[in-house]
Amino acid sequence: MSKLLRVDDVTVPACCSPLSGPPMAEAEAVELAKVFKALADPVRLRLLNMIAAADGGEACVCDLTGAFEVTGPTISHHLKVLRQAGLINGERRGTWVYYRAIPEQLTRLSGLFALPALTTI
Amino acid sequence: MSKLLRVDDVTVPACCSPLSGPPMAEAEAVELAKVFKALADPVRLRLLNMIAAADGGEACVCDLTGAFEVTGPTISHHLKVLRQAGLINGERRGTWVYYRAIPEQLTRLSGLFALPALTTI
Repeated sequence: MSKLLRVDDVTVPACCSPLSGPPMAEAEAVELAKVFKALADPVRLRLLNMIAAADGGEACVCDLTGAFEVTGPTISHHLKVLRQAGLINGERRGTWVYYRAIPEQLTRLSGLFALPALTTI
Repeated sequence: MSKLLRVDDVTVPACCSPLSGPPMAEAEAVELAKVFKALADPVRLRLLNMIAAADGGEACVCDLTGAFEVTGPTISHHLKVLRQAGLINGERRGTWVYYRAIPEQLTRLSGLFALPALTTI
């Protein structure tokens, strides 16, 4: 049986007021800016898309590296940036690392951009 | 009466599949990465927060410049970046420019991070 090894444990801040809500604390803005910096790359966005949309919610790094015209080390770097931003986590099982999107972080970001429902008078 | 002058007109792409949905086209990833680059700055995030949360949905640049320990030209630069990313638009009325968040862009981003509702068997 493969040895299970958690590659990382990411803590996603409890959150989140929407942008249309109360003033954002400076520390939260600094932390969120780092998350958006991680998302500010087309290859990382497509990697996150592949991981979040993978069957069973999990994508093997072996399936991710072949999908882009960049080297394996570059993909590894991008995956590390996404991990450090709390967007994905990885678990090594045997030869490969398997990645999952972190639903709390995606939900947090979805809520950040959510607008209040329009009320009718 | 003040002359009305629209400072810019931004087209937000019709959208949006969630990250957990179908494969993202390369062109969409490139465009979205630019939006996230605009968001990858704490001052810009707080400016967008102030604009999106403003009474009446509109913030005067005169109220924005005093809220940060950076120069007026720096604030103007940040507002330009947010405008170019389709996150806000501005309208000059008399002396001042008034900014609004673009709801279609915020809703698009909210949908991008939305997760499918869990179904029970």
